[in-house]
Amino acid sequence: MFENSEKANIESLGEFGLIDHLTRQIELKQKSTLKGVGDDAAVIDFAGKKALISTDMLLEGIHFDLAYTPLKHLGYKAIQVNLSDVYAMNGIATQVTVSLGISSKFTLEAVEELYKGIYLACEKYNVDLVGGDTTSSKQGLVIGVTALGYADEKDIVYRSGAEEGDLICVSGDLGGAYTGLQLLEREKLVYLENPNIQPDLEGKDYIIERQLKPEARRDIVELLKDISVKPTAMIDVSDGLASEVLHICSQSNKGCNLYEEKIPIDPMTYETAREFNLDPTVCALSGGEDYELLFTIKQADYDKMKNLADISFIGYITEASAGRNLVTKSGTVHELKAQGWNAFKR
Amino acid sequence: MFENSEKANIESLGEFGLIDHLTRQIELKQKSTLKGVGDDAAVIDFAGKKALISTDMLLEGIHFDLAYTPLKHLGYKAIQVNLSDVYAMNGIATQVTVSLGISSKFTLEAVEELYKGIYLACEKYNVDLVGGDTTSSKQGLVIGVTALGYADEKDIVYRSGAEEGDLICVSGDLGGAYTGLQLLEREKLVYLENPNIQPDLEGKDYIIERQLKPEARRDIVELLKDISVKPTAMIDVSDGLASEVLHICSQSNKGCNLYEEKIPIDPMTYETAREFNLDPTVCALSGGEDYELLFTIKQADYDKMKNLADISFIGYITEASAGRNLVTKSGTVHELKAQGWNAFKR
Repeated sequence: MFENSEKANIESLGEFGLIDHLTRQIELKQKSTLKGVGDDAAVIDFAGKKALISTDMLLEGIHFDLAYTPLKHLGYKAIQVNLSDVYAMNGIATQVTVSLGISSKFTLEAVEELYKGIYLACEKYNVDLVGGDTTSSKQGLVIGVTALGYADEKDIVYRSGAEEGDLICVSGDLGGAYTGLQLLEREKLVYLENPNIQPDLEGKDYIIERQLKPEARRDIVELLKDISVKPTAMIDVSDGLASEVLHICSQSNKGCNLYEEKIPIDPMTYETAREFNLDPTVCALSGGEDYELLFTIKQADYDKMKNLADISFIGYITEASAGRNLVTKSGTVHELKAQGWNAFKR
Repeated sequence: MFENSEKANIESLGEFGLIDHLTRQIELKQKSTLKGVGDDAAVIDFAGKKALISTDMLLEGIHFDLAYTPLKHLGYKAIQVNLSDVYAMNGIATQVTVSLGISSKFTLEAVEELYKGIYLACEKYNVDLVGGDTTSSKQGLVIGVTALGYADEKDIVYRSGAEEGDLICVSGDLGGAYTGLQLLEREKLVYLENPNIQPDLEGKDYIIERQLKPEARRDIVELLKDISVKPTAMIDVSDGLASEVLHICSQSNKGCNLYEEKIPIDPMTYETAREFNLDPTVCALSGGEDYELLFTIKQADYDKMKNLADISFIGYITEASAGRNLVTKSGTVHELKAQGWNAFKR
C-alpha cells in the first residue's frame, strides 16, 4: 500500500493515523449508509425495514492460530462469520464495524494484510465497513466484528418457528472445516519438529479453504427468495450440526429425527477424517465452523426444493415428546447430543 | 445470583449455559427491540428514523487494571463509553451488544459482577442488551461493546458542521478521570510495596468515580432538545479536550481560539493534579476519559444557554487559516496540540 521509500509504521501513524490509513480508500456501496467511518457513530437508514445486528469476537490462540492462518484469510473469515448470522435471519447484510486489538509484534504490513481480507469480504458481499476501534493489546490479536443488516418483518426467520412435520434442510456439506483444521494442526506439528519439511497439503485445497476462508451463504437466502420459500426456522452452522439442530428444537419446543445417511459430507472430508481415525459423521455433527445454513421448511415446499443440488434434506421435526433423535446408518436410534470437542477425545 | 447450595461454575455451564445464565433476566424496555438475545441476530425497528452504530473494545492491561477496578464498575463503564458516542451524534441510545473474552482466572461470580454493572448501566440509560458473544480468552479480559441508537435525520450532529464564529462549549468538568487514575496508580504501587497499608483515597470520591464510573451525558442531549438548541458540531471527550477540539476543527475545516482560563476544572481535580506535580490544564487538555460532550453552537443560541450551570463556553471557531490556538491565562498564544500521553512524561 505504501509506495514511498520511507516506510511508515504503526507507532509513527498513531491511532487516528492508523485508522485513517486503513479506511481512507473505503467506497460506500449501500444506499442505507448515510455516514460511515469518521464520526462518533455511523448513521444508517433502513427506511422502515427492520435492522438486524450480530456480533462475534475472535481471539488469537482460541479461534485462530497465526502459525497457519494467513492474515488476509483471517480478515475475510472474521467478516464471513458475522454476515452468516444475518443471513441466518433471512436478512441482507449491509454494514460491519471492526474493532482490533493489536500487540506490538504486528507490523503495519501485517495489519494491512488483515484489512485486505476484510475489504475483500466486504466487496464480495456488498457490505460497507462503517466504523470500529483500533487499540493496542498486551498480547495477541483480538478481532471484534459487528454486522448490521435488514429485512422486512414478514421475511425474518427465527430459530423458534419449526413445526411438527417440517423438513430439516442444510446447505452445502459439513465437517470440512474441522477436518481441514486437523490437517493444518498436523502440519504445524511436523513443521515445529523439523522446519525443513514442507507442509503436505497437496490435493486438500477444498477442506483447507473450508477452514481458512469460509463463505457465508448469502446465495441460499437469495435462492430461497427466488423460489418463494420462507423457512420456518433457520440458524447457521458455527458450532456443529448437532448443536444447531438442538437450538432449533429447543427454541421451537419440538423434537426431531435426523438421519445419519442424509448428512452431506464431501468425499475429501470423508477420506481425511478416516486418515485421522475420526468418524466423518462426528466431524459433521460436532466439528463446527462450516457456516452453512440449517433450516426447516413446510412439507408443502418440498417440491420447489427437491431438485436443488446444494440442499440436503436430513430429517424432520417431531413433537417435543418424541425426543431429539439421530437415526444411524444401521437403523439404531440415539439421542442427539451436542458433543462439542469432547467427542473427538478418544 | 445462585441461592442453591450447589455452586455452578463457568465450565459446567458451558458457553450456551453461561449466556443463558447471564441474560435470562433481561427485560426488554425499548419498543424498537423486536428480538433481543437468543437468535443469530437481534431485530430492531427504527420505523423510519436513522440508526446510529458505534463500537469500542476494552482490553485488560491496556484500558483497565483489575488491581483497582471493581468488575461491576468496569461493566458499567464499558457501556457508558459506547452510549457516549451515540449521544455525541445527538441521538438516543437504545440497544447494546456485549462480547466477552474471559480467561480461566475468572469465576462465574466475577462474570456476574461484570454483568451487574452492564445491567445497571442499561437500566439507568434505558438501553436493551440484545446480543453478544462469550468466549474463552488465553489471557486477560476482553470486552467489546457495540451501541445502537437512532435520531431523526434533521437532528443528527456530525463533527464536521462547525462554522466560523460558533462558540465552543463543553459539559461538566475535565481532567478528573485522569487525575483519578493517577491516584489509583499511586495507591496500587503503595499496596504492592506493602499489602498491609490501606489505600488512602479519602475525600477523593469524585475523581475516583470520574475514572471508574463515568456517566455518558444523555442529559445534555435532552437539555439541548428542551431549549431547542441544535449544536453545529459535537464529539465526546474520550481522548482529551485538545484531541477532540482538533477533530472538530479538521473535520469542519476550521480553526479555533480556545481559552485556558475558561476550561472547567473541578477543585479536587486541580488540587490532585498539583499534588502529582501535574499542570491541571494539561490534565484537562490531554487526560481523556471524561466522557463529557464537546460541541459548537451558533452565537444566536448563546442567550438560551448562558445561564446553564453545567455548560462552559471555552472558545470559538475561526477560519482555518487563523490556526488552532490555545490562549493561556497569561495571554500568550500557543498552537493547540493533541499531546496525548507524552505530555505527562516529564
